[in-house]
Amino acid sequence: MGDLPDRISLREVGPRDGLQNEAPVPTDDKVELIDALSRTGVSRIEAVSFVHPKAIPQMADADEVWRRAEKADDVRYSALVPNLRGALRALDAGFTEIEVVVSASDTHNRKNVNRSTEESLDDIARLIAEAHERGATVQAIVSTAWGCPYEGDIPTERVVSVASRAVADGADAVSFGDTTGMATPARVTRLVGEFRSRNPETPLNLHFHNTRGTGLANVYAALQLGVDDFDASVGGLGGCPYAPGASGNIASEELVHMLEDMGIATGVDLDALIEVAARAERMVGHKLPSQVLRAGPRTRLTPA
Amino acid sequence: MGDLPDRISLREVGPRDGLQNEAPVPTDDKVELIDALSRTGVSRIEAVSFVHPKAIPQMADADEVWRRAEKADDVRYSALVPNLRGALRALDAGFTEIEVVVSASDTHNRKNVNRSTEESLDDIARLIAEAHERGATVQAIVSTAWGCPYEGDIPTERVVSVASRAVADGADAVSFGDTTGMATPARVTRLVGEFRSRNPETPLNLHFHNTRGTGLANVYAALQLGVDDFDASVGGLGGCPYAPGASGNIASEELVHMLEDMGIATGVDLDALIEVAARAERMVGHKLPSQVLRAGPRTRLTPA
Repeated sequence: MGDLPDRISLREVGPRDGLQNEAPVPTDDKVELIDALSRTGVSRIEAVSFVHPKAIPQMADADEVWRRAEKADDVRYSALVPNLRGALRALDAGFTEIEVVVSASDTHNRKNVNRSTEESLDDIARLIAEAHERGATVQAIVSTAWGCPYEGDIPTERVVSVASRAVADGADAVSFGDTTGMATPARVTRLVGEFRSRNPETPLNLHFHNTRGTGLANVYAALQLGVDDFDASVGGLGGCPYAPGASGNIASEELVHMLEDMGIATGVDLDALIEVAARAERMVGHKLPSQVLRAGPRTRLTPA
Repeated sequence: MGDLPDRISLREVGPRDGLQNEAPVPTDDKVELIDALSRTGVSRIEAVSFVHPKAIPQMADADEVWRRAEKADDVRYSALVPNLRGALRALDAGFTEIEVVVSASDTHNRKNVNRSTEESLDDIARLIAEAHERGATVQAIVSTAWGCPYEGDIPTERVVSVASRAVADGADAVSFGDTTGMATPARVTRLVGEFRSRNPETPLNLHFHNTRGTGLANVYAALQLGVDDFDASVGGLGGCPYAPGASGNIASEELVHMLEDMGIATGVDLDALIEVAARAERMVGHKLPSQVLRAGPRTRLTPA
């Protein structure tokens, strides 16, 4: 176990990736969720996305949400964008951390942003230049990295190529997204290894979904490779648009619970996070998939 | 990845551990479930338990269930018992594989079988002798191996001692049960390592619960230690009596799905197993926690 990182950085994506895949909630609730998360000890929050409101009405109020959210000094906030136009909105709103998403699967990219992967990469090159000029950093998120719901498996070489192109164009960091929960530990080991051998210096985040139950197993595989940067969503907020009723993002409480028990620091107050998960559950009005929200941490005993 | 086993043996525990933690279902349904599972390729089924019907009314019809179940030639069936008295019933019913359960936690053992762990171990020694005389094998299941809902953490040394006592008394195999889902990969690595160093030749099964989301991560940790024998429950049937609404056993489909994708054979036809999980869900009349039941395998694509 000596090889595992001592601490990881958790990026909380509930307010964006979570709420984007739920029925729309009021602006007040979004602000409340971000503010509550900012007080849990979490060091990074993906706050909003700047996307076309017709495509994703859940994020139509991104400007207002961000204006009203408390910006805690000890939290880094980021915005997700699909293209240069979205990035300009995010930069105008004051974000200094931009995540831009591109699918390794051409079919998924066309469905998602109505252009080929290649066209997205050209746009991302311009986006990176613009963001850097304005003092912001850019993380390239390669989605469908472990498989596409339309195309199936995407060759690892293709996924690494897409990521490496963004790195060559100046991306400050890369994230691999398991968009529909198709990753298993062996696939995680393979992709991370091949990416690292081509881009040994690039900061790498992994974004797992628990759609098929493998979320934390994938995290454990990645930890063994030294990966120390993970996305997760409070309560497991979100879901999978391709599989109604199935889970989406791994739950932040489950990630924090497992890692802290293994002596890997997250900086997060687990009890406070569970309280926010319960609040998120009331917000969306249905049971969230987080097991730790349901069962409590392993230290919560039953009176004999 | 070269160190992982090429194949594992899955023991399906849905008919016993699953149904024991659900509202009682009719005898016909239990027989149907065992028979359906016998046709999925699964090599072992924990069919029933012989316990006092007042303690566990769900298993009061164990004799009839077992009499009526088809006994497939290529499936090994076992019965779980809490003590010698239960073992005698199982042997009389014709079982040749007995599992006897004892808690590493004294408090849990007293709650479960109304005697101390030490008293159970004495009884198990007699049980093993009796079973061996009648040509049956005995697996000692040490429950609360990674923590007890009443006592909290149980020292690894204590868990290994309880298991080693049963081995010294002739147990043919050992299983460690994560009764309320308190295991994490670091704890799995520690307990398996310490048990193996004292009992290098004893066959070892692991029985994980997904109560806090760590089930498959624990499996992945165990695979890396060469463990190749796991329990799982179809659909994730069961639940956790200590945490209403939380998951119990890891779902067989999730285990098979992850392992087969990693090139580790299970012998199980995943599609057939998912069909049985759907049937089990109708049987108990509520949504089961299996994610693969919900989302389907990763190879199930969405039309573009």
